Amino acid sequence: MSIEPAWIAVDWGTSRLRAWAMSDTNQVLGFLENEQGMSKLSPDQFEPTLLDLIAPWRGQAVTRVIACGMVGAKQGWCEIPYAEIPFDLTSLVPQEITTLDSRLAVSIVPGLSQRDPADLMRGEETQLAGLLAQGSDFEGVVCLPGTHTKWCWINKGTVERFHTAMSGELFALFTQYGLLRYSIERGWDDDAFRRAIVETSTSSRDLTLLLFSIRAESILFRSTSAQSRARLSGLIIGSEIGGIIDDILGRPVIVIGSHGLSEHYRTALDHFGADVSLLRGDEAVLKGLALLFQNVRSVGQVESAL
Amino acid sequence: MSIEPAWIAVDWGTSRLRAWAMSDTNQVLGFLENEQGMSKLSPDQFEPTLLDLIAPWRGQAVTRVIACGMVGAKQGWCEIPYAEIPFDLTSLVPQEITTLDSRLAVSIVPGLSQRDPADLMRGEETQLAGLLAQGSDFEGVVCLPGTHTKWCWINKGTVERFHTAMSGELFALFTQYGLLRYSIERGWDDDAFRRAIVETSTSSRDLTLLLFSIRAESILFRSTSAQSRARLSGLIIGSEIGGIIDDILGRPVIVIGSHGLSEHYRTALDHFGADVSLLRGDEAVLKGLALLFQNVRSVGQVESAL
Repeated sequence: MSIEPAWIAVDWGTSRLRAWAMSDTNQVLGFLENEQGMSKLSPDQFEPTLLDLIAPWRGQAVTRVIACGMVGAKQGWCEIPYAEIPFDLTSLVPQEITTLDSRLAVSIVPGLSQRDPADLMRGEETQLAGLLAQGSDFEGVVCLPGTHTKWCWINKGTVERFHTAMSGELFALFTQYGLLRYSIERGWDDDAFRRAIVETSTSSRDLTLLLFSIRAESILFRSTSAQSRARLSGLIIGSEIGGIIDDILGRPVIVIGSHGLSEHYRTALDHFGADVSLLRGDEAVLKGLALLFQNVRSVGQVESAL
Repeated sequence: MSIEPAWIAVDWGTSRLRAWAMSDTNQVLGFLENEQGMSKLSPDQFEPTLLDLIAPWRGQAVTRVIACGMVGAKQGWCEIPYAEIPFDLTSLVPQEITTLDSRLAVSIVPGLSQRDPADLMRGEETQLAGLLAQGSDFEGVVCLPGTHTKWCWINKGTVERFHTAMSGELFALFTQYGLLRYSIERGWDDDAFRRAIVETSTSSRDLTLLLFSIRAESILFRSTSAQSRARLSGLIIGSEIGGIIDDILGRPVIVIGSHGLSEHYRTALDHFGADVSLLRGDEAVLKGLALLFQNVRSVGQVESAL
């Protein structure tokens, strides 16, 4: 039986394209994905790439798509200007773009920008909107771990400020290209992770000054690859949280992301004394896109496209 | 006219092999180098590589070579065990190794190790010895900037403790492989470097939390590649020094290294209020190898090889 979604939710990041077929009551009817992220596409390849992926879901009617992520960046399908913070997410309106196929109506969620200190996000704002869809009175800090981890201070639907940490990219660079890469190839050791977190919480040293100990310990004490890898992660995440903890304590913290990485952040935040809960990243994206789809409808963009 | 050196000083690191022909009064008679660093050689390739480079300097007598650097590492020509700190550099004795060519006598300088916190050096101990050759009563901190920058606390010839910072490697990873690499390809902007140093000295944020601002500023404020590149360097060096400054202030600091990088460290250390002077890296290596060559002679290694 073929699926005929009321609309399609799309999360289109740097490395992946993911699409959900949604019912008119926002139930998930189907899921499709591929590796055609922004980094692999030129602007004119986005529309055919999307049409190819969602072909099984298309009928006679106009296909309505709401997309978030790097698809709206300068190097993406169509550049959507950033909304500047402080910004009330309930008023965030995805922008309709021009498509070649007249039976396709695509709107892209704007990212958020901050001038001082300069910072940017594209994609995470939708997950924040998803959190608000669950209850709009959240007041606290949201952590979205990833290549560029975002820390966001939220007050009843408004993003007041945010801060990006390059922790995930740092971990990737060291494990893929760093001189330590052969000592940290694979595995995971929970104790080594926890010890590293404790170490960062009691040391005033910057991360730069802690990392070489991984190599020294592997030579002097023959630490295993699993220990070294977990220690690298612990030193990076611990240094990140240590540098921001004074701004977190006393506020509830919600970590939104994938299972493994979110658990690591929870462990570290627990150690630093934060009050932490978790929300699944996929769930947040879908709830956010559903909330923002209402904003598109309420300003009449979709109707005018019909 | 052919050169017949009394001995040959060799600095054999990860990426380069450098050799100086020395007179019996330690004057430099000649210099040769190539890119055959440790990372490009298997253990049995070291001897032919060295013989090839120094061929113009060989006569009928035994050729005496003192070498420092990664040549003595596990992946080098022959593993020389580390000397454990605290260690008096005046008693550091290069270890003679076995060679296939009986007219070649090679001694390799041991590196230094520290157990808590675990740390290692190979090569820098020779530069420290070179500093002592100038006057053995130095009491203070020596900074040796590089891929893995060393900070060493020295007391009258003894290395009391040291600390490695992975700052140079971090800069290399970000400029070569990082997602920012296109924003920081080339150029240098002194003002941007200084502003970044000031920023690190007034912020409690860890480096991880500062780096993304380079990308955000390049998008929001169209900062140039030269500004971004210098800012990256300033944020890394400033975070490194900021994490260690309490251990430096009140002690004289000597920076030993190449011209450009040493100047950046001097600028940053000046800003943090340290009392800094510079020593050329090449000069320190040569003076150190000359000092250590005496140690080899005084324990009779060279004589026994004749």
